[in-house]
Amino acid sequence: MSSEFEFIEIFQRIGADYYKENGIILGPGDDCAIFNLNTPIVTSVDSSIEDVHFPFDAPVEDIGYRAVSIALSDIAAMGCRPIAFSLSVSSPFNEIDWYMKLSKGVKDIAEEFRISLIGGDLTKGPLNINAIVYGTPYDNNILRRDTAGIGDKIYISKPVGRGSAGLNAWKSGNKNSPFVKDYLRPKPMIKLGKNISKVASACIDTSDGLLTDLKKMIHSSKLGARIYLDTIPITSNINDINKGDDYDLCFTIPKELNIDNYIYIGDVTDCNEINFISEQGYDINITGYDHFKNE
Amino acid sequence: MSSEFEFIEIFQRIGADYYKENGIILGPGDDCAIFNLNTPIVTSVDSSIEDVHFPFDAPVEDIGYRAVSIALSDIAAMGCRPIAFSLSVSSPFNEIDWYMKLSKGVKDIAEEFRISLIGGDLTKGPLNINAIVYGTPYDNNILRRDTAGIGDKIYISKPVGRGSAGLNAWKSGNKNSPFVKDYLRPKPMIKLGKNISKVASACIDTSDGLLTDLKKMIHSSKLGARIYLDTIPITSNINDINKGDDYDLCFTIPKELNIDNYIYIGDVTDCNEINFISEQGYDINITGYDHFKNE
Repeated sequence: MSSEFEFIEIFQRIGADYYKENGIILGPGDDCAIFNLNTPIVTSVDSSIEDVHFPFDAPVEDIGYRAVSIALSDIAAMGCRPIAFSLSVSSPFNEIDWYMKLSKGVKDIAEEFRISLIGGDLTKGPLNINAIVYGTPYDNNILRRDTAGIGDKIYISKPVGRGSAGLNAWKSGNKNSPFVKDYLRPKPMIKLGKNISKVASACIDTSDGLLTDLKKMIHSSKLGARIYLDTIPITSNINDINKGDDYDLCFTIPKELNIDNYIYIGDVTDCNEINFISEQGYDINITGYDHFKNE
Repeated sequence: MSSEFEFIEIFQRIGADYYKENGIILGPGDDCAIFNLNTPIVTSVDSSIEDVHFPFDAPVEDIGYRAVSIALSDIAAMGCRPIAFSLSVSSPFNEIDWYMKLSKGVKDIAEEFRISLIGGDLTKGPLNINAIVYGTPYDNNILRRDTAGIGDKIYISKPVGRGSAGLNAWKSGNKNSPFVKDYLRPKPMIKLGKNISKVASACIDTSDGLLTDLKKMIHSSKLGARIYLDTIPITSNINDINKGDDYDLCFTIPKELNIDNYIYIGDVTDCNEINFISEQGYDINITGYDHFKNE
C-alpha cells in the first residue's frame, strides 16, 4: 500500500514556477505557507463532495480541476487576480493512480491561471475536497456584493443553465453533450472580473443559481431589483435562473456608464424586493439551491 | 427543517470584535474575505474527520474547539500570531442545536486567542470540518522546519503521550481522566511559539507524534539527530514518542544559547540519521502516524 507521504509528494511542485510572481516565500512542506505581497489578500474556501458537487462517476482529473475552479470563481467575483491555493483532501482511495489523476486536473488549472499550490492536508475518509484560494487586487479595486447603488444596471455575461444541462446530460449518459464541459470544467471568470473591476459597483458569482445569488447581492446592498426576464439567455427553460453551477458573474454598473459585450438583465431599485417583468408571462419561484433543503 | 443560511448565520459574528486588530477589512458574507496587514501572512489548513481526528461520541462543542485548535498549532509552529480562520463544514445534521453547539466551541477558541472567523462553506455530507488559519509574525521572525543547524540543541515543552492517553481514556469510558481535556481541547502553543520566535533556529508542531515530526524537521534541514530518550517525559510508556495528538512544539536552539523552562532532548548532528541514546535500553521503532497505513 502506498503512503500518505507519497500521495502528498505528487502535489508538491504544482505551480512552483509561479512562486515569485505570486509573492510566495514558502510553499508546501512546512507547518504553514508564507505570503509576502504587501497588498490586500482576498481568500475563500469551497468544498466539493461526491454526489453533491460532482457525480460519483466523474473523471478524477475533472474532479481535481473543478474543485479548484469553483473556488477561483470567488476570486473572480472580487475582481481579483488569483495567486495561490491549498487543497484539503479526504479520500477513501489507496491507489497512487487515483492521486496522479487528481493532481493532473489540479495541475491543469494551476497552469491555466498561473497559480501556486501552497499547502494542504490529506486524510483517509469519505471523498471531500476543499480548495482554499488566495488572490490580490489587480489595481486596488476589490469588488463586493453589498455595494450596489440605486439605479445601477445589472449584468451577466453568458446564458444561464449550461452547468445544470451538463450535469443532466452526464447523468443520463449523454457524455458527448457540449454542456458536459461547462459542468465538469467550469471556467472561473477571472478575466471578466478583471475587466469590470474598475467600473462595477457590486459583483457576485452565480454558483448557487442566478436568482439566488442576485438576491444575495441585492439584499446585502439593502436594495431591490427589477429583472427583465425575457432578456436572460437560457439553455433549457426559464427555470435555469434557479439552477446552480454556472459560475458566471452577476454585477452592477452605475447607470451613467455603458459597457459592451455583457447582458443587461435589470436595474437596481430602492423597493427592497425583486420584481420580474416579462411579456412572456414567466412565473418565477425564487428558491435557489439550499444544501439542507433541496433533497 | 432549518436551512443552510440559518446555520451559517450562527457563525457569522464569531470574533468580529477583533477585525480591526487582525487587519480584516471584510469578514464573512461575501465571496471572499479581505485582509490588509502589509505584513507577511502565514496560512495552513487542517481537517477533522469523525473516527480519525475525534471519536464519534465526542461532545460537539469540543469537536468545534478542537478543529480550530489543531490548525492553530501550525501557526504556533511558525512562531506567529493567529489572526483569523475559516471553517468548511460538511455535516449530516439538520438540527440547529448541533450547529449551536459547534459554534459554542468555535467561539471559545476564537475568544481565547482573539481571532476572527472570516468565512467558510457548509454542505450536507459525512462529518468533516476543515479549519483554515491565518497568522502574522510577532516581530518579523517566522520559524521554519528546514533551518536547523549542526550542533543545535533540540527541545520540547511538555510530556509526550497526553493526547493519546486522553483519547484512550475517553474510548474506554474513563471520561473523568485528566488527560481527556488534553485530547478534546488541546492548547495550541502560541505563547511558546512567540517566546522562542527570536531564538529558535527551527520548529515544528508534534501533531503526528514527536518522532515523526522531529524526523520531518531534521530531514528537511538535511541533517541528523542524537536523541537522549531517557530525558523525554512520558505519560504511559516510551512508545508515547510515536503517538500523535500532542500539539507541542519541537524546536532547535543554537548550541551557544541557553533557555530555561523547556526540555532538552537531543542535538542536531551532521550524520543524516536519527540515533537514540538510552541507558534504559529502550527499543524504538520510528513509524509515527500515516493516515493511509495505520488502519
